[in-house]
Amino acid sequence: MTAVDFSAFVDTLAEAACETILPFFRTALSASDKNAGGAFDPVTEADHAAEAALRRLIAQAFPGHGVIGEEFGSIHEDAEYVWALDPIDGTKSFIAGLPTWGSLIGLLHRGAPIYGLMAQPFTRERFWGDGAAAFWRGPGAGGAQAQRRLMTRACAEFSAATVLTTSPLLYEDDKLERFRRLERETRLSRYGGDCYAFAMLAAGHVDCVVESGLKLYDIAALIPIIEGAGGVVTNWDGGAAVGGGDVVACGSRELHDKALALLSG
Amino acid sequence: MTAVDFSAFVDTLAEAACETILPFFRTALSASDKNAGGAFDPVTEADHAAEAALRRLIAQAFPGHGVIGEEFGSIHEDAEYVWALDPIDGTKSFIAGLPTWGSLIGLLHRGAPIYGLMAQPFTRERFWGDGAAAFWRGPGAGGAQAQRRLMTRACAEFSAATVLTTSPLLYEDDKLERFRRLERETRLSRYGGDCYAFAMLAAGHVDCVVESGLKLYDIAALIPIIEGAGGVVTNWDGGAAVGGGDVVACGSRELHDKALALLSG
Repeated sequence: MTAVDFSAFVDTLAEAACETILPFFRTALSASDKNAGGAFDPVTEADHAAEAALRRLIAQAFPGHGVIGEEFGSIHEDAEYVWALDPIDGTKSFIAGLPTWGSLIGLLHRGAPIYGLMAQPFTRERFWGDGAAAFWRGPGAGGAQAQRRLMTRACAEFSAATVLTTSPLLYEDDKLERFRRLERETRLSRYGGDCYAFAMLAAGHVDCVVESGLKLYDIAALIPIIEGAGGVVTNWDGGAAVGGGDVVACGSRELHDKALALLSG
Repeated sequence: MTAVDFSAFVDTLAEAACETILPFFRTALSASDKNAGGAFDPVTEADHAAEAALRRLIAQAFPGHGVIGEEFGSIHEDAEYVWALDPIDGTKSFIAGLPTWGSLIGLLHRGAPIYGLMAQPFTRERFWGDGAAAFWRGPGAGGAQAQRRLMTRACAEFSAATVLTTSPLLYEDDKLERFRRLERETRLSRYGGDCYAFAMLAAGHVDCVVESGLKLYDIAALIPIIEGAGGVVTNWDGGAAVGGGDVVACGSRELHDKALALLSG
């Protein structure tokens, strides 16, 4: 099950994503509505250009690998190695100018997420992990680059926990009430974040992240980071999170058990 | 009415705030509960240390000036010049590790906000204005410092507007329903932001920011930035925003008129 070391190649992909996207950030964007008649889901030129660049690099280096991406769909989904790409996770934050979005690059081996990276081009941060360990690199004291190991926080009670969710408006049917049940037990809840919220969980600043309606490419890259930092991430039923859907991540097993109980239907 | 040029002194204050606060960001914090029994309102060591440092600098340079701050109350409130300080506006974002908070430094002359600055130490950004013009300085291409004029966006319809509010959980009584009325007309609404949301409005990325229950020091510094960028900011009744309370800011007069109508009781 030991995988080839793809970390240098993932860095190359991250570099390409950041260089492609950053010039579009905080400029006038033509956001079209991908789901006409549905919820507002902005697609930017940057998202398209970055995913195209990443797909080109992957096809050149590993023509047999599969790719699942937000913008251009799937190819070779049943290959041994499959890349999960979301160049701008958090498009609503992006178009509002907020820096709480990121570029997600995940690698699946026989369906299991084995490596993931989240890059934030504006803050010049990267979060990455392989399920066994996770790391952060970004601006340190005096502007120099710093690097450190990511470790989740061992909070065991919702009465002491900080919880993030992107927006309660995203919960459908009875899911809002199930989320509210968890939120009512919580010391502090905060909205907004997308992938940045999961990164803050891996970094030990947040104890629980709850999301609904995720796609595979929204979460695949984040699983090896969260688990590498000591966290637990599953769907609301306790099953594998890699497929997306309704996802809950916690910094500790104890809190995660309680989260599943609160979110149960 | 022409004021003395305090911009160099405000830069000194901002430098002191950033240097004091940044070492506390994303470290383990002992957050105490300021309003015991009330809503969770974290107070950090950083907030205290920074406001103390700013008050010291102001008392040394301008002993006759007044100060209104979040942490240590008011002195000389009826002085000709009064400083409004909130070293960490957005403490919930701060303790969750998110960079969408800021240090607010505002200056009132005979009760009117004449100069304001918002600094974000982690992203190394500053937004400032004097009511007639407003500016941003921060990381540009290749990591070099860049500076540009801030200009709001001329959006005239909520059907095309992006709206930010910190959290719908903060609206009391019928105010949530009044906010929802505005939100339902809106193309895109997004939660989270505090002062960073108003800064994005001044920068032209967001069309409307709605908040409830603000204090003077939450908004005084932002008014000269918003107005200097071409925006309009009042309370929900169309009166002066400087006192805080329920505040609405828009990028254009047309949108602001519509916002007041939607938010009216």
